[in-house]
Amino acid sequence: MNSVSTPSEAHTSFRIDRKLQAAPARVFAAWSRAEAKQAWFSCHEDWRDAGYALDFRVGGSEYNEVGDGDGLAHVFRAHFLDIVPDRRIVYAYELLLGERRISVSLVTVAFQPDAGGTLMSFTEQVVFLDGYTDNGERREGTEVGLDKLGAWLVSPSADAVVG
Amino acid sequence: MNSVSTPSEAHTSFRIDRKLQAAPARVFAAWSRAEAKQAWFSCHEDWRDAGYALDFRVGGSEYNEVGDGDGLAHVFRAHFLDIVPDRRIVYAYELLLGERRISVSLVTVAFQPDAGGTLMSFTEQVVFLDGYTDNGERREGTEVGLDKLGAWLVSPSADAVVG
Repeated sequence: MNSVSTPSEAHTSFRIDRKLQAAPARVFAAWSRAEAKQAWFSCHEDWRDAGYALDFRVGGSEYNEVGDGDGLAHVFRAHFLDIVPDRRIVYAYELLLGERRISVSLVTVAFQPDAGGTLMSFTEQVVFLDGYTDNGERREGTEVGLDKLGAWLVSPSADAVVG
Repeated sequence: MNSVSTPSEAHTSFRIDRKLQAAPARVFAAWSRAEAKQAWFSCHEDWRDAGYALDFRVGGSEYNEVGDGDGLAHVFRAHFLDIVPDRRIVYAYELLLGERRISVSLVTVAFQPDAGGTLMSFTEQVVFLDGYTDNGERREGTEVGLDKLGAWLVSPSADAVVG
């Protein structure tokens, strides 16, 4: 629970589309295997890893914690709601800065085959909590992560992880 | 997991506001106590109850199953993501018709004191799955449920349940 004195909620959503040079099965694996996900899922290379766990199934969860330059813990906790192999993942997630929950989101990631590659859409429906001001950073940070995914998928190091 | 042959996703959202003749603590209790929730949370009085469970806490879940006139099971399964007592509830939920998951949603219910009563906002950010056509029924069904909540809150039977 939050214990802030002035609760408030701001709802928004954004969508990011990417053309990826890998087949849908490989892209899906990059989202569903812990070793792969950890290789690309971060927007700040210099932050300290403080914990990761993935239980990829409907009803399962994902946990990622990093410490920023000031030592503040950034906690991502997701709950998987729908999975269609090689095609779609839907999850809810919360983001905490220290003890403060700054947002709760519903994310849909969908994969479509396209000329040997994949058209991937990432849609986030989000509620920012208690006056947290995003200023577009959520979308920007997500774009950084998805750029890393695109680069990682065509890297030699990906072959050993997602075939 | 779904096993449909043509996965698709349609994102939308809606918001419903209600002025309720009960203080926020009483309205919050109507959402957070099993006996109260079951008294108003349905849009079809004639459908058969087939199971209810509520574990109201962050990380907890809610389950409601009813059978419609044709015997088809309608399953609501929620996962609580944020709770501020008397003030806010955020949960993700899925809706299944039989084995088919037709939607996944993020819901924010917020309560503000207002002249002895409560201003309640209900915001649903939803993704409809695999060609399911809603035609506005989700919003209409929700309005029916919230009308029932408003009537129940001022009824004598509520006093024993939510004080």
